[in-house]
Amino acid sequence: MSFNTFGKIFRFTTWGESHGPAIGCVVDGCPPNISLSIKDIQIDMDRRRPGKSKFTSQRKESDKIEILSGVFQGKTTGTPISMIIYNKDAKSRDYETIKNKFRPGHADYTYFLKYGIRDYRGGGRQSARETACRVAAGAIARIALNKLIGKKLKVVGAVTQLGLLGCNRNKWNEKEIRKNPFFCPDKKSIKLWEKYLLAVRKAGSSCGAIIEIRASGVPVGLGAPIYSKLDSDIASAMMSINAVKSVSIGAGMNAAILSGEENSDEIKNLSGKTKFKSNNAGGILGGISSGQEIVISFAVKPTSSILNTRETIDKKGKNTKISVKGRHDPCVGIRAVPIGEAMMSCVLLDHYLLNKAQCG
Amino acid sequence: MSFNTFGKIFRFTTWGESHGPAIGCVVDGCPPNISLSIKDIQIDMDRRRPGKSKFTSQRKESDKIEILSGVFQGKTTGTPISMIIYNKDAKSRDYETIKNKFRPGHADYTYFLKYGIRDYRGGGRQSARETACRVAAGAIARIALNKLIGKKLKVVGAVTQLGLLGCNRNKWNEKEIRKNPFFCPDKKSIKLWEKYLLAVRKAGSSCGAIIEIRASGVPVGLGAPIYSKLDSDIASAMMSINAVKSVSIGAGMNAAILSGEENSDEIKNLSGKTKFKSNNAGGILGGISSGQEIVISFAVKPTSSILNTRETIDKKGKNTKISVKGRHDPCVGIRAVPIGEAMMSCVLLDHYLLNKAQCG
Amino acid sequence: MSFNTFGKIFRFTTWGESHGPAIGCVVDGCPPNISLSIKDIQIDMDRRRPGKSKFTSQRKESDKIEILSGVFQGKTTGTPISMIIYNKDAKSRDYETIKNKFRPGHADYTYFLKYGIRDYRGGGRQSARETACRVAAGAIARIALNKLIGKKLKVVGAVTQLGLLGCNRNKWNEKEIRKNPFFCPDKKSIKLWEKYLLAVRKAGSSCGAIIEIRASGVPVGLGAPIYSKLDSDIASAMMSINAVKSVSIGAGMNAAILSGEENSDEIKNLSGKTKFKSNNAGGILGGISSGQEIVISFAVKPTSSILNTRETIDKKGKNTKISVKGRHDPCVGIRAVPIGEAMMSCVLLDHYLLNKAQCG
Amino acid sequence: MSFNTFGKIFRFTTWGESHGPAIGCVVDGCPPNISLSIKDIQIDMDRRRPGKSKFTSQRKESDKIEILSGVFQGKTTGTPISMIIYNKDAKSRDYETIKNKFRPGHADYTYFLKYGIRDYRGGGRQSARETACRVAAGAIARIALNKLIGKKLKVVGAVTQLGLLGCNRNKWNEKEIRKNPFFCPDKKSIKLWEKYLLAVRKAGSSCGAIIEIRASGVPVGLGAPIYSKLDSDIASAMMSINAVKSVSIGAGMNAAILSGEENSDEIKNLSGKTKFKSNNAGGILGGISSGQEIVISFAVKPTSSILNTRETIDKKGKNTKISVKGRHDPCVGIRAVPIGEAMMSCVLLDHYLLNKAQCG
Repeated sequence: MSFNTFGKIFRFTTWGESHGPAIGCVVDGCPPNISLSIKDIQIDMDRRRPGKSKFTSQRKESDKIEILSGVFQGKTTGTPISMIIYNKDAKSRDYETIKNKFRPGHADYTYFLKYGIRDYRGGGRQSARETACRVAAGAIARIALNKLIGKKLKVVGAVTQLGLLGCNRNKWNEKEIRKNPFFCPDKKSIKLWEKYLLAVRKAGSSCGAIIEIRASGVPVGLGAPIYSKLDSDIASAMMSINAVKSVSIGAGMNAAILSGEENSDEIKNLSGKTKFKSNNAGGILGGISSGQEIVISFAVKPTSSILNTRETIDKKGKNTKISVKGRHDPCVGIRAVPIGEAMMSCVLLDHYLLNKAQCG
Repeated sequence: MSFNTFGKIFRFTTWGESHGPAIGCVVDGCPPNISLSIKDIQIDMDRRRPGKSKFTSQRKESDKIEILSGVFQGKTTGTPISMIIYNKDAKSRDYETIKNKFRPGHADYTYFLKYGIRDYRGGGRQSARETACRVAAGAIARIALNKLIGKKLKVVGAVTQLGLLGCNRNKWNEKEIRKNPFFCPDKKSIKLWEKYLLAVRKAGSSCGAIIEIRASGVPVGLGAPIYSKLDSDIASAMMSINAVKSVSIGAGMNAAILSGEENSDEIKNLSGKTKFKSNNAGGILGGISSGQEIVISFAVKPTSSILNTRETIDKKGKNTKISVKGRHDPCVGIRAVPIGEAMMSCVLLDHYLLNKAQCG
Repeated sequence: MSFNTFGKIFRFTTWGESHGPAIGCVVDGCPPNISLSIKDIQIDMDRRRPGKSKFTSQRKESDKIEILSGVFQGKTTGTPISMIIYNKDAKSRDYETIKNKFRPGHADYTYFLKYGIRDYRGGGRQSARETACRVAAGAIARIALNKLIGKKLKVVGAVTQLGLLGCNRNKWNEKEIRKNPFFCPDKKSIKLWEKYLLAVRKAGSSCGAIIEIRASGVPVGLGAPIYSKLDSDIASAMMSINAVKSVSIGAGMNAAILSGEENSDEIKNLSGKTKFKSNNAGGILGGISSGQEIVISFAVKPTSSILNTRETIDKKGKNTKISVKGRHDPCVGIRAVPIGEAMMSCVLLDHYLLNKAQCG
Repeated sequence: MSFNTFGKIFRFTTWGESHGPAIGCVVDGCPPNISLSIKDIQIDMDRRRPGKSKFTSQRKESDKIEILSGVFQGKTTGTPISMIIYNKDAKSRDYETIKNKFRPGHADYTYFLKYGIRDYRGGGRQSARETACRVAAGAIARIALNKLIGKKLKVVGAVTQLGLLGCNRNKWNEKEIRKNPFFCPDKKSIKLWEKYLLAVRKAGSSCGAIIEIRASGVPVGLGAPIYSKLDSDIASAMMSINAVKSVSIGAGMNAAILSGEENSDEIKNLSGKTKFKSNNAGGILGGISSGQEIVISFAVKPTSSILNTRETIDKKGKNTKISVKGRHDPCVGIRAVPIGEAMMSCVLLDHYLLNKAQCG
């Protein structure tokens, strides 16, 4: 059972609201004796934080992590690592006008009906601000994985589709991804994407995105049948990210239209090494990693807080209209890249540790 | 932690191998005092079982369920319901020729590398035969939901794409689905699908499919933030089904190309009832059911056991070729329909019970 | 969450009622490649089964275990091991006269009030018959531990107090324990215990017992702070056994009257080996095994089904009297010895596996 | 799986070390719409905090709780409640002299052997300082129970034995308990206890204690067979408290010497109300609450950090001696009273919520 906790062995619990004093995260089950510095975690935090370009939310948060426990003399101790991030730039006043209305496509409707209470300030707990904590946990997972497995293990994400615009996935260039504000893997698409997103924002609208996450250097054998399959846990992890509506592994939805021959990734022994001719499986067979690159993708719906007026109801059930001002991302999908990477790192570390227990 | 157990409150544990003496399932957490008869469960079992048409596996299994515990005088007692299905038509000999080779795209490769042991008989535990147990658990969930919520709660699945061939999803007709061997919702597509699938089989190949599951009558408020979201649990459930490579909720992958206006399902009070103008959310907002129909879909890859020869390696790592005879489904996606329905029923009952605990 | 499942990594789920067709157990998380034969499990089963002497229940059950899954060619495969035991000698008629009355001190009262349903046949799910399944799971745990850690790991239990009669715990003799029908560790007490228990039975009464379990050869470092401490899990395990009312680790209740000096087990390096001068801790410090022998004990209350008449109420709440005939153990504590051993083995294997995951 | 998390539905995760900047607690699964003020929590905190009398540790901690999330406009929102307590009076220097030695009877030995790292400052994570967080979580549980069940639900603990000295349990007086520094329920014993404990302290020694917790007003039907029994969960909860070596329910260890007649609590309908003639069961039958008062007790061993010199080894395994200065409780058992109450409240709320899910 875990409402706000993710993971089996390596587990993290997040807490905090968008406009509360702070948000935070308790990481449990991290192995001891792993060198951990705030700086290493901050790198990942900075990739997610808002206010860095005109293409994301203008809320100014430095997202400075503080570690309150679990690290002694620069090393993890095997006890819970508590991290806290103070909220600096919450403007609850922005929400006064919509505090009694429901945003179409937003969780404020279902939260209110479930809990009978509404924290209207910035979405409260429903806000994607919660994901900052995931990135902090993911950074620790990444560092632990690199200590335990080695540097060859690498998790990289990118936006492969921005609204209506795709890009050439074969031009995947990690350096390029790190440079541009869209995490776009293909240099050629960037200019067009810029124009497109500015137009979307200007129109008072928003757009969705597709994010792809690739994990290379994953050992063979991670995963656990039947209901803790690696792909099953990845699907659960990604679907738990705000606004995600679809998760694919390898060929994904496209698997439906492949023939049996096309789909089956042929295996070959090349000078003593097992090689696969293709990777429709996305690195996972029967819920267990095959040693191939793990390739997954997920779709993020457009931001539901938009300036354009929409019909809705209020808390009393009366018909009304809504137009959401404030500092929302025109495309929440962009900042989902470091979040997806973080969740992937967490799942991989969790299964790496779990695998040690499974096989005795 | 749960390798072979699914669920939080309503939980089921499956066991058994394709060619062992039996398979089975222990359902725990089913509320007491629910009338339960074998006959009701058998209806669902019969929808999944093989050997019913020339379009599925020719293995002849009656899949007769026996209940060994948890039911007294026709009613559930609140204690574990143990069910067993004896395997009748296992032909392990069929697997002798491939017992040292790995099927490309099949889990026998990863299982062997993980566990160091290979139960080659029909795929052992990796076999989709395990899913019969899910259908039995799902039948109990369905019966319990109908007792607790009422008959208006209904879960119906269909194949909406068979390999390269789609169908008209707007022609969704539940009666039609129950009649044809493909669970196709659109009468017009059936003839074509027949020809297509026979051709695929004749060619020694296989094909994939897309399955859609619709749940209507679901109360508002089911689901639990942040890491037990309803959609997150559905994604995990569906991705745990053999051969599934992608799961979508509502607009799914398509959500990426919608505009903010298109995507946000406007809300309207019509004579005192809350109505949504569209259902891109697929009935789930922020991980919590909105009261709209829950609509999800998943893609199943083509069967990896095919007659056509493929390159592979054997247990010693030597290059070889493989051609799989035996009685495999040309499209495993078809029989995934009742499995997807079962998993949906289980998730819904689980969250229905969980919701009672959450809100005190 | 786990109503009928015990354990974290090595988990078992039990099912079945006293007078149903069968009872059984699904063991999940057992490492692969462990040689497992029915014979090895049956040895433990035979130590628990009723009808062996005049000092226990006269119900005749052979308690023959059948393995339905999870073992291939004599070895575990890492998949669920399903075991079944058919009930042979259930006499439900014995319970007709008390089917509407509650036995004072028995769970039939609380079960009825909680679930609103009563399976009166032999206590249904509340019956200690369920513990046969624990013994089967425990046997697998013992075999796995001996494979993984070596033969030096040994779990032995005994009855150290039978009703009013104690025995000399310092005369602990494993061979003696295996020989007498009381699992008494001290030869000198046996005669007296025989007379005492026959007198108790003849008087239409029953008596309690204290059971002690010792585990030697346990590696240092098993256990997990704070809420999965080894002693915490042992306490939970033992308290889950029918009729247990108290669990002690090491000095137990007696720890309250020791001085700080007496209680602290001094440590000494003797020729390179760490030795403790005493073992008040019972082999566990801070929830983690210290390498010393683990010594625990638990108290079992007298059987509540007795011949002597007691006042009670019936299902309608009317005052009445009850006298329970049938074939009950005059002291359920005796047969709790193999059950306690089994639970200890399960906890130790579980933590052994978990420890591998914890430390990366 | 839960190393630092306790509970099933109502769950709390604790973090922090004795001498780190802060300790804290994340409470998840608390129902929404419960009025919650810092003041209400602080009452319980103050009952546990050190430095209040000469009979406990002289460490001066105000143990001021801050709430960082989960409460909006004075009410719980159903989202995680994060609480933090800053450490004010940590004196790590006190521990310099023993930083390479192991205290006999203390967890610093096993932690070091398990994790390969030692946070010597005040015991790090092993410190009973962690229990402050439990008291905070327990206060929330108590408040929620009183909202959900009513004021009649009451959990009260007391010290019934201080080292060698008992007291008259029949003189149980709640007001008296609240007044004296020992939580002693019997006024007559206090003077003697004072003298005794001062003598123990003066002698450079320490002593143990027995704590009893009584919960009245508990509804019938809480608890879940077989491995989530109410008594099983209580045993696990209490055994997880630092230095606890034994847990008893009702008659406890004494149950072993009762006759079947004595032990079975006869039931009587008195003017329409079910009454029990005795309460050897301690309010729990078959793991389910019977509606009687729940009565449990646990033994706490003497503080292992004592001034008197003891033999031990150091981190390198060399023989040495140790004498522990610093500000330790002469009897840690005293402050265990509010901790035991807190754990009892948490278990009861957890099972109260769980029960709603179990019965549909």
